[in-house]
Amino acid sequence: MIDLHLIGIGTGSPDHLTRAGESAMRAADVILLPRKRADTADLLDVRLALCDAVLGERGRVAVFDLPVRNTAAPYLGAVNAWHDAIADAWANAIARHLPGGGRLALLVWGDPSLYDSTLRITDRLRARGMTLSVTVTPGITSLQALTAAHAIPLNTIGDPVTITTGRRLADGGWSAGADTLAVMLDGQCAFDTIDPAGVTMWWGAYLGMPQQALAAGPLGEIAVGVRTRRAALREEHGWIMDIYLLRRARP
Amino acid sequence: MIDLHLIGIGTGSPDHLTRAGESAMRAADVILLPRKRADTADLLDVRLALCDAVLGERGRVAVFDLPVRNTAAPYLGAVNAWHDAIADAWANAIARHLPGGGRLALLVWGDPSLYDSTLRITDRLRARGMTLSVTVTPGITSLQALTAAHAIPLNTIGDPVTITTGRRLADGGWSAGADTLAVMLDGQCAFDTIDPAGVTMWWGAYLGMPQQALAAGPLGEIAVGVRTRRAALREEHGWIMDIYLLRRARP
Ligand SMILES: C[S@@+](CC[C@H](N)C(=O)[O-])C[C@H]1O[C@@H](n2cnc3c(N)ncnc32)[C@H](O)[C@@H]1O
Ligand SMILES: C[S@@+](CC[C@H](N)C(=O)[O-])C[C@H]1O[C@@H](n2cnc3c(N)ncnc32)[C@H](O)[C@@H]1O
Repeated sequence: MIDLHLIGIGTGSPDHLTRAGESAMRAADVILLPRKRADTADLLDVRLALCDAVLGERGRVAVFDLPVRNTAAPYLGAVNAWHDAIADAWANAIARHLPGGGRLALLVWGDPSLYDSTLRITDRLRARGMTLSVTVTPGITSLQALTAAHAIPLNTIGDPVTITTGRRLADGGWSAGADTLAVMLDGQCAFDTIDPAGVTMWWGAYLGMPQQALAAGPLGEIAVGVRTRRAALREEHGWIMDIYLLRRARP
Repeated sequence: MIDLHLIGIGTGSPDHLTRAGESAMRAADVILLPRKRADTADLLDVRLALCDAVLGERGRVAVFDLPVRNTAAPYLGAVNAWHDAIADAWANAIARHLPGGGRLALLVWGDPSLYDSTLRITDRLRARGMTLSVTVTPGITSLQALTAAHAIPLNTIGDPVTITTGRRLADGGWSAGADTLAVMLDGQCAFDTIDPAGVTMWWGAYLGMPQQALAAGPLGEIAVGVRTRRAALREEHGWIMDIYLLRRARP
């Protein structure tokens, strides 16, 4: 029997950790951390630094190599195959580190509910017959780190907000629905594909981390600057994670 | 000069507090807490308990009476008048407790970005000529408390999510846009107004608190039960805060 604890750790700052997250880290027998491809090695370091800060030791930490997603294959199929491969890696790590069962913690970036695969991989282990109890500890999302850094509300009074991806914005545009749009997972600057008239943008990269970068203003005025800065930062650090909020004036 | 710190405290559990929130509470000269109408006295108690847990004392805590919103008047106008009245109450409290300036902390329920008026009231103080520096510390939202309690993802893979209010759902229905809808501020059970075919609901009340209540299942099967339970809980505790996620199967 495995007690699996998915701990939202926020977006890079140890200050984002909650009291519940801290207790769960201390209670774990093993904390399993993914090692990604070299250019995001920083993210393993952030998680290791968090373990150092909270536990003062790395005795319980186990690192596994995160399989790589096939970016050439069609999106949904590639994601499913990737999740299967991660489930294999977890199963191997569990067999190795917790052969008799116990408490396994995973440090999930941001919050485990938001554009994260951890819960789906958990479902795969269950489907394979593993006996799992799953507990989720919420964490600060990159969207909250963005609104906090800009000191802005997410919604206008009583109005809805849509959270979406760069892929969706580029493919489907921003027609119906909410006048506030939060865009994540956008490697392609999908904000360049929409009509900027009346749209304000709040952008943030590496939120919560020492490299944090912010920009805000009318989309038409800042779009080029954000694109340029994004490319330069990506070049400088080898990777980038950014998110933005778009708000359009009511027609 | 007032250093205003808006601290997201999560939704009732002291375990939701982050390290940053804790430091900000300790650094404050005054922590200003709202006393609401008698039937939500619990929420003042939650905040006082948090101060006890973190600070071990109440010497820095100041309580002010939160003005009441006119629920008979048209919505937007009533909200604006209410925000003006709260700004007056803050200004009075600041004049009284921090006449020479200093660090004022407000403990914001959930996260300050989400359906919360604190940042808008801050803008009003600025517009009146008060010199303010504003810092926001993100907190766990009720939406994250909901998905964590049910151990579910917010989004399906790569798909958008809309966050809205009960009022909006009841008035505008759920036609275009995202197939996942998070509904907050719903005193009227707006979920009863939509076609339940193919819709799954995850509901939670008093999330993070000892009274926490959960329900999940096909909307058509659980809607009546949620409505009944909600009324009974409201009767029992004198107040209720609940939130739910609706997900529809793609047509
Ligand atoms: C796979 S999703 C994970 C989101 C995460 N679960 C959360 O709660 O924020 C990765 C995306 O989140 C956003 N993101 C995560 N961390 C970020 C950070 N520190 N700064 C800016 N954006 C971030 C970016 O849009 C990135 O493409
Ligand atoms: C004025 S909004 C404030 C939201 C808050 N800022 C947040 O981040 O969750 C109040 C609404 O939030 C939701 N809510 C807040 N706390 C809750 C709790 N503990 N359990 C369930 N719903 C809650 C309910 O939908 C409620 O009507």
